Amino acid sequence: MMKLLITGFAGFVSHHFLDLLNKEEPGSAVLGIDKSIPDFNFSNYNNLTISFENIDLLNRSASNKIIDSFQPEYILHLASVSSVAKSWHTPLDSFVNNTNIFLNLAEQIRINKSKCRILSIGSSEEFGEVAEKELPLTEEHPLKPVSPYAVARVAQEMLSKIYADGFSLDIIMTRSFNHIGPGQKDIFVISSFCKQLVRLSKNKSVNNIITTGNLSVIRDFVDVRDVVRAYYLLFKKGRRGEVYNVCSGNGVVLKDIILKMTELLGIKVETVTDPQLIRPNENKKVIGSFQKIKDELGWQPEIKMEKSLSDIIQYWQTKVE
Amino acid sequence: MMKLLITGFAGFVSHHFLDLLNKEEPGSAVLGIDKSIPDFNFSNYNNLTISFENIDLLNRSASNKIIDSFQPEYILHLASVSSVAKSWHTPLDSFVNNTNIFLNLAEQIRINKSKCRILSIGSSEEFGEVAEKELPLTEEHPLKPVSPYAVARVAQEMLSKIYADGFSLDIIMTRSFNHIGPGQKDIFVISSFCKQLVRLSKNKSVNNIITTGNLSVIRDFVDVRDVVRAYYLLFKKGRRGEVYNVCSGNGVVLKDIILKMTELLGIKVETVTDPQLIRPNENKKVIGSFQKIKDELGWQPEIKMEKSLSDIIQYWQTKVE
Repeated sequence: MMKLLITGFAGFVSHHFLDLLNKEEPGSAVLGIDKSIPDFNFSNYNNLTISFENIDLLNRSASNKIIDSFQPEYILHLASVSSVAKSWHTPLDSFVNNTNIFLNLAEQIRINKSKCRILSIGSSEEFGEVAEKELPLTEEHPLKPVSPYAVARVAQEMLSKIYADGFSLDIIMTRSFNHIGPGQKDIFVISSFCKQLVRLSKNKSVNNIITTGNLSVIRDFVDVRDVVRAYYLLFKKGRRGEVYNVCSGNGVVLKDIILKMTELLGIKVETVTDPQLIRPNENKKVIGSFQKIKDELGWQPEIKMEKSLSDIIQYWQTKVE
Repeated sequence: MMKLLITGFAGFVSHHFLDLLNKEEPGSAVLGIDKSIPDFNFSNYNNLTISFENIDLLNRSASNKIIDSFQPEYILHLASVSSVAKSWHTPLDSFVNNTNIFLNLAEQIRINKSKCRILSIGSSEEFGEVAEKELPLTEEHPLKPVSPYAVARVAQEMLSKIYADGFSLDIIMTRSFNHIGPGQKDIFVISSFCKQLVRLSKNKSVNNIITTGNLSVIRDFVDVRDVVRAYYLLFKKGRRGEVYNVCSGNGVVLKDIILKMTELLGIKVETVTDPQLIRPNENKKVIGSFQKIKDELGWQPEIKMEKSLSDIIQYWQTKVE
């Protein structure tokens, strides 16, 4: 039974965390906050008591009031404007909606001397520029962020460390790698591909073409259901002030994912590269190591890529006309 | 002749930069902005045209308006709440008054496509925890910030790098080591010691006691007049997107500085340690390397410690009753 605050409640990670909590921690009380309204029905969770407040963490007085009255024992801090591409267009917005919202939250917990465990979610983007020989990336690897979003996440992690070590707040940090899974918005690469492919398969058109960025890059994709299981274990057994990679440990070429999805859908497509989608300073290959979280918490990814992709396809089949 | 915006105009570094500019760049136009009112008389600079605006860089619309109308060719970004100790008491204030004010400024220059060279001042605090065998610290040394202030400065530097490399802004960064010199506020260690010692020497009391923190720590102190000369050269010849240490390359034990000052004043004192002034995670020894700025710009420190200390004494002798 947990008394849990979830920031970024309207996002798909939150949704999957609730699925897990509903099974693992019946009787839990959840306060969700987000500046967007969730598009899933959270009254369906029979084993949970859930309330939602539509507020922005940048509005300190409003969020302080709500959090103070709830008195969480755990905080899952998912709130983030998490698009790298967007951060190049609106860097200020990206920074304040990652670093400053976290700092506001941490400050409130510090000032109120609240006893609660905070999970500060970070990103594999923090590693930035990496050479192939340095893979897989461990938590010790130096951080060289190369986008406004990545800098915001590094600052959040460094602040987390200060609040944990210097102010004795019970904060644990993650560097979470690329998520995949049903429910993810189509601004993220796999979800975007899948939505396009499902539409093509429904339309049964002859010229199947999708536009993409650089398909030769290799990324470490981890299923969101494995991710939320890691977060749950970190709440239970993680060590304060420590950072943990959450990743699959596998590198997959983007073009192989498209191939796999077309096989599952029984269609053929041609890909066309859109130069607008090529990022200026993109790593060819990024793979993480989950050795630390495996050694300390016994976590490892369980969901195979095939399962993830078929569930994502199923999700978009219910959404796309 | 420079058209220069100085943020943090009311501070003592600004004052010394104006001294240099008045000699080296007659005819220059300066716009100073600060949320505090300067306590020096800036109408005394015969060779400069100086205006001042009392605004806070967190007030984006006000500062945007003023900077847009001035159209600077150079920006010396000195504005900072630069006390490590204070940052442990008001971490949020420290963060926004370092990182966010810089980000607001950089955003404005980016959005307006202004052609100007920005000097983003950072701190040796960014290095954080260092081992003695790693000294002297070069610019390549990894950053492990251990205070809220230090995190704010690292975030500022990382953002500077993104704006230089990703948005092609002409930004140069420094990691400036402990400043000393006449005019520095007494919240900084040497200035605080000196003020106390000058007061004792004026009072001619028998029991001369001053309270201090840990006097066995070794720090790299650089005279503010050497610092502003480095900044001037960086404007002229620094490389975009690069970070430069500004330091003396010498380590001095704090207790030797007190000894030196008592000799210069012809007094004897006893020191008493105040546990409140001991920092929890203080490095024993910090020394920087100025090899990079020497190789690239020909800069090296010129003012000897004795000269700095006697000028600081002279300053406090005019101030202390």
